[in-house]
Amino acid sequence: MQEDLDHETYMARAFQWAAKGYSDGGCPIGGILVKNDTGRVLGQGHNGLVQEGNPIVHGEMAAMRDAGRMPNRHDTTMYTTLQPCFMCAGTIVQFGIPRVVIGDVVNASSDETIRFMRGKGLEVVVMDPRTSEAAHACVELVAKFRSEKPEQWMEDWGGGPNPALTPG
Amino acid sequence: MQEDLDHETYMARAFQWAAKGYSDGGCPIGGILVKNDTGRVLGQGHNGLVQEGNPIVHGEMAAMRDAGRMPNRHDTTMYTTLQPCFMCAGTIVQFGIPRVVIGDVVNASSDETIRFMRGKGLEVVVMDPRTSEAAHACVELVAKFRSEKPEQWMEDWGGGPNPALTPG
Repeated sequence: MQEDLDHETYMARAFQWAAKGYSDGGCPIGGILVKNDTGRVLGQGHNGLVQEGNPIVHGEMAAMRDAGRMPNRHDTTMYTTLQPCFMCAGTIVQFGIPRVVIGDVVNASSDETIRFMRGKGLEVVVMDPRTSEAAHACVELVAKFRSEKPEQWMEDWGGGPNPALTPG
Repeated sequence: MQEDLDHETYMARAFQWAAKGYSDGGCPIGGILVKNDTGRVLGQGHNGLVQEGNPIVHGEMAAMRDAGRMPNRHDTTMYTTLQPCFMCAGTIVQFGIPRVVIGDVVNASSDETIRFMRGKGLEVVVMDPRTSEAAHACVELVAKFRSEKPEQWMEDWGGGPNPALTPG
């Protein structure tokens, strides 16, 4: 069904967005939406929590916004430097994006969103930081950021679990 | 745990946002984020697909953006004129919003996102259009919009199910 995209190349590009976000004082997470059959980049960007004061602009969301309007995204791949949160996983599911490629799952607290996306029939590719230079860079940068700005990291994830909620 | 907010009042206000979106030629869906203990409106807005050319600005997302940065949203309620899609349901879950109040479930294709949110421990209140004037207005306006602009409606939902995906 899908042409083979070179994950390493696109992840390296997504990492460049993450690195730009970091150098601006923001959260270092980038996303790129790519057309499968041509390899064309439809949209790209980085987390904008700090730069825009906007909590909904995660890396994947920035890529979605940049790509803009289209009838559907049924033949695309979302590259993201960090495992999607539920906002971004829900977006990928809702917009029928059939594949997501993730650079860093090491800094995620669980694999819940991956299981959610797979449960909806999506292909989820997790790159291995031991063999991918780009994925390794993604993991290292977020680890550095987390240790430098733990409160900003927590805010970006929505402030942590709500103690009033007891998932069934 | 939560103060009682007057759902009818807030839903009527959310509907005003939906109506504004409609009169601009956009998708008629509004959202409002409210602080539970004070009843203060933290953020509000309407779908911006057409007005901003931005597919991620659903009503709930507009309210999130308008509310801006905060440590958490653990004591808030999201009012939305239309049942959340997976992007918005994922956002509500990710940001730990403990309650969502919905004006219109009639125009939703399934109750999947409601089950998803309830499964995460959220309280989901569905208003009844037979007894709530505001909810009735929400249902009527979206039904009208769908019949007038079926393609815009479909685009806003992400273009419909992806035939390549077979949810497990």
